[in-house]
Amino acid sequence: MKPTHIEHIGIAVKSLEEAIPYYEKVLGLECYAVEEVADQKVKTAFFKVGQTKIELLEPTCEESTIASFLEKKGPGVHHIAFAMDDVNQALHDAEEKEVRLIDKQGRNGAEGLKIGFLHPKSTGGVLTEFCEDPKKK
Amino acid sequence: MKPTHIEHIGIAVKSLEEAIPYYEKVLGLECYAVEEVADQKVKTAFFKVGQTKIELLEPTCEESTIASFLEKKGPGVHHIAFAMDDVNQALHDAEEKEVRLIDKQGRNGAEGLKIGFLHPKSTGGVLTEFCEDPKKK
Repeated sequence: MKPTHIEHIGIAVKSLEEAIPYYEKVLGLECYAVEEVADQKVKTAFFKVGQTKIELLEPTCEESTIASFLEKKGPGVHHIAFAMDDVNQALHDAEEKEVRLIDKQGRNGAEGLKIGFLHPKSTGGVLTEFCEDPKKK
Repeated sequence: MKPTHIEHIGIAVKSLEEAIPYYEKVLGLECYAVEEVADQKVKTAFFKVGQTKIELLEPTCEESTIASFLEKKGPGVHHIAFAMDDVNQALHDAEEKEVRLIDKQGRNGAEGLKIGFLHPKSTGGVLTEFCEDPKKK
């Protein structure tokens, strides 16, 4: 299964409040949503650039994976998400090609999407997400 | 000036030969070009996903900035490139907003694009490129 486009780029930031002005004032993008995703322990801010969203990720506590990412690597690109028509099928296909999965099945992500992650060990170091928009079905 | 879309995502890899099969076989994307960019000391491979390209970057020598990136951070996302209608104007606008630039003026990049980089110190840790396609003028 082939992705239709880059759904979003996830970027780890220490503080949404400090990061948003760069995207708004320098890049001229509009922050159209701020959302807390409790089970991922992050607060997110979204911007749209053509087909793709920029998703800024601020950790809400020290146990957040984004907090550990910031500690190890500093702020920067955390993951890339590819839009897929069927996340469960795409995860299954990847596993059949010996890709290590973080999620064996799609689960609920920000913005009502069904999401699943591949392990960066199998994707050349890039934490990779597949996303399906159930509203498009 | 606002970007129209994400032109490409630059991903540092140790070896194109080892990295390309993941993009082709797991993601189902087609590698439509392999190009050496001598002044950046890299060999690149391109894939298209919707409006956006994936640009894999393999260093051609130890002095390549991609070689130092791989040494410090390992393989992964190296930069994000935004499509702009006018790179020189976009660089100028960013500088007026106190963004530190790597390139004060656009220069020639891969695929005949005019490109310029912003410094990651000013962009929340994300090495950021502006790209203009002179063929679209």
